Amino acid sequence: MNFKVPRGTQDILPGESAKWQRVEEVIRELCRVYRYDEIRTPIFENTELFTRSVGETTDVVQKEMYTFTDRGDRSLTLRPEGTAGVVRAYVEHKMFGVPDQPVKLSYIGPMFRYERQQAGRYRQFVQFGVEAIGSADPAIDAEVIALAMDIYEKVGLTDIKLVLNSLGDKTTRDSHRSALIAHFEPSIHELCSDCQNRLHKNPLRILDCKKDHEHPLMATAPALPDYLTDEARAYFEEVKKYLDVLSIPYELDANLVRGLDYYNHTTFEIMSTASGFGAITTLCGGGRYDGLTSELGGPDAPGIGFALSIERLLLALEAEQKTLDLNNQLDVYIIAMDAAAKVKAVELTSTFRTKDIATEIDYVNRKMKAQMKAADRQHAKFVIILGETELQEQAATVKNMTTGEQQKVIFSELVTYLQSQL
Amino acid sequence: MNFKVPRGTQDILPGESAKWQRVEEVIRELCRVYRYDEIRTPIFENTELFTRSVGETTDVVQKEMYTFTDRGDRSLTLRPEGTAGVVRAYVEHKMFGVPDQPVKLSYIGPMFRYERQQAGRYRQFVQFGVEAIGSADPAIDAEVIALAMDIYEKVGLTDIKLVLNSLGDKTTRDSHRSALIAHFEPSIHELCSDCQNRLHKNPLRILDCKKDHEHPLMATAPALPDYLTDEARAYFEEVKKYLDVLSIPYELDANLVRGLDYYNHTTFEIMSTASGFGAITTLCGGGRYDGLTSELGGPDAPGIGFALSIERLLLALEAEQKTLDLNNQLDVYIIAMDAAAKVKAVELTSTFRTKDIATEIDYVNRKMKAQMKAADRQHAKFVIILGETELQEQAATVKNMTTGEQQKVIFSELVTYLQSQL
Repeated sequence: MNFKVPRGTQDILPGESAKWQRVEEVIRELCRVYRYDEIRTPIFENTELFTRSVGETTDVVQKEMYTFTDRGDRSLTLRPEGTAGVVRAYVEHKMFGVPDQPVKLSYIGPMFRYERQQAGRYRQFVQFGVEAIGSADPAIDAEVIALAMDIYEKVGLTDIKLVLNSLGDKTTRDSHRSALIAHFEPSIHELCSDCQNRLHKNPLRILDCKKDHEHPLMATAPALPDYLTDEARAYFEEVKKYLDVLSIPYELDANLVRGLDYYNHTTFEIMSTASGFGAITTLCGGGRYDGLTSELGGPDAPGIGFALSIERLLLALEAEQKTLDLNNQLDVYIIAMDAAAKVKAVELTSTFRTKDIATEIDYVNRKMKAQMKAADRQHAKFVIILGETELQEQAATVKNMTTGEQQKVIFSELVTYLQSQL
Repeated sequence: MNFKVPRGTQDILPGESAKWQRVEEVIRELCRVYRYDEIRTPIFENTELFTRSVGETTDVVQKEMYTFTDRGDRSLTLRPEGTAGVVRAYVEHKMFGVPDQPVKLSYIGPMFRYERQQAGRYRQFVQFGVEAIGSADPAIDAEVIALAMDIYEKVGLTDIKLVLNSLGDKTTRDSHRSALIAHFEPSIHELCSDCQNRLHKNPLRILDCKKDHEHPLMATAPALPDYLTDEARAYFEEVKKYLDVLSIPYELDANLVRGLDYYNHTTFEIMSTASGFGAITTLCGGGRYDGLTSELGGPDAPGIGFALSIERLLLALEAEQKTLDLNNQLDVYIIAMDAAAKVKAVELTSTFRTKDIATEIDYVNRKMKAQMKAADRQHAKFVIILGETELQEQAATVKNMTTGEQQKVIFSELVTYLQSQL
């Protein structure tokens, strides 16, 4: 019987996983200084949470969710994104009542969408995201964007750009909606059945249809910025002002509508501009979702957040041929030449590890020469050799693998010696 | 509409999540020095992987799995444990062919079992585990156990004990199996239907039946150690020898059989002995599973590993009233007294954060006094005050919240000043 990783998912193997760990360290440190405390919500939620928040007419809800019934007959869904669960937790734990608003949260973990497999798109993928709930200050929009940009900068990406738009407030959306219906209705039969279904339910979604995005009606569609109210326009101006203060350049794109229903006001994407980076260039997407808290049973609170894909961040690094600074080197390999030496090797290994010295020994009874080869392959910085003589003298032969120098060090001084050399 | 976290799962909120992060740091550092590289396998696998490896007659497979069909009509199961996926990946990626054996892997992540809710038992829970595949050296059994023990020591637990057993080899298991059938068969009608079903399929499982564990037949059942072959006994002696070398004390328990079918030879559990720690005292369980690789389509390779629950580790810390050393303090809170100062505050916040200084400002338009209260509540080490005078003088008022001292620092020297004080 042969088993394979489920279609659309991947194993992250040693070597590759060290890169993930490094990216996570960068993110954790930035969340610390930006003060976005981590929250961990379950992998699955009640299905209705997503239909309600992400939106019934979105591709995500209609085609891409992993929905199942548990043994207690509840309909559960593997989370397709992170915001719904976090906002659910914000409401359930009454975080709107804590004195320090906004509540600034971050999350990282696997998300699940049943999509066609392609480069940079998996059915299980990892998103990092933040949510700042409880503030309608344009400065926090800028902070959220700055955090995302900082992550890319700290991991070493340079070929990225920020694209910005405003979806405005409810009045903006309503008048734009009417204009969209008037625009598409006469020729709606030329568009796909999904678009036809969405015409009256949610015409904004037509603009991000994957099938019809080349249709001439798309280019001439009413642009949302033309319908912004004075208040929404003023809010957006403030956001741009703060981005200028933070020296964060951006492009404006009136067609940036995002694929989820809950967005309003500021929306943004961060894209890779590296040549050779595949067709999907979006690394990060986010925006404001004022009102989502009340949609999920809480009081009406403003909120903004983003989500970024770790897979795509790593692909962007590859496209830019940047390497991460990893900390996974082997410090010492201990070679034991006989059974008595093996016992001493086990003891020393444990002692070294207690002192944070990464140490390895042989567990498959290899001869000395083969053990030396293993130490080489694993790029050990030092090799310690233990045999009959060494046990008698209570001193090990220590070889510096960089310089090739070799010397005897008595057992009781080994830790001090290694610490001074590493 | 009110949404709740799904039954049997939990949200890990800010404050609590900092503890998780700290435990993960300890684990990551120990994996680095012990050389267990991380592997990340998907949250779900093909269902048959678990029935095959965990065992068809186990409680896990029979009653506790989250199994569902995806949109492509595949039967998938949320992983109930981590070993099956890791061994699947070991075989699929032909890791048995890499020159450095054993392959030493670690994993951490959510697992899923549909169980009755009780203290310390969740339907989604997080396990950390390691697998060393490709060595039948008793010294690696000791290494794996030492790593688990070290994790508990480094987080600060002291009230723990290691319990050890050997399930022996195939010959051991076969003769013990016959003895068990002979022992239980005459009175099998006194036991539950599960036990009756297991009598011929897998009589060892009767010993860990949750319903019948008080039945007198259990205490008098044939003990596995009496059936150990000479080879199995010698192997176990070597494991104990290496534990002695590492100064790791243990208790022997002939009834330690573990709830999964794939174990043989060394099995162990680490338990909390803290008074007030609930009914479930097992923190960590593991053992050898020689032959599992061939069961999953690969060549026959020996393997050993363990899994431990992060939830229970944290509960054990609570029971021992130990606290973790957390790194989540706020360094600076910047108070802006008017709109112009706010712009400067945003700029300084960004500058400080770039220098790894954890910084916060107000985003809900509070008055100065309320901002000072917020700084207090968040235990800021320093408060910086910006108003009209400060902007004119290009110097901020800096208050040390520990000493209460206050002084003016010019803007361009703020970073240097704070770095010297923090």
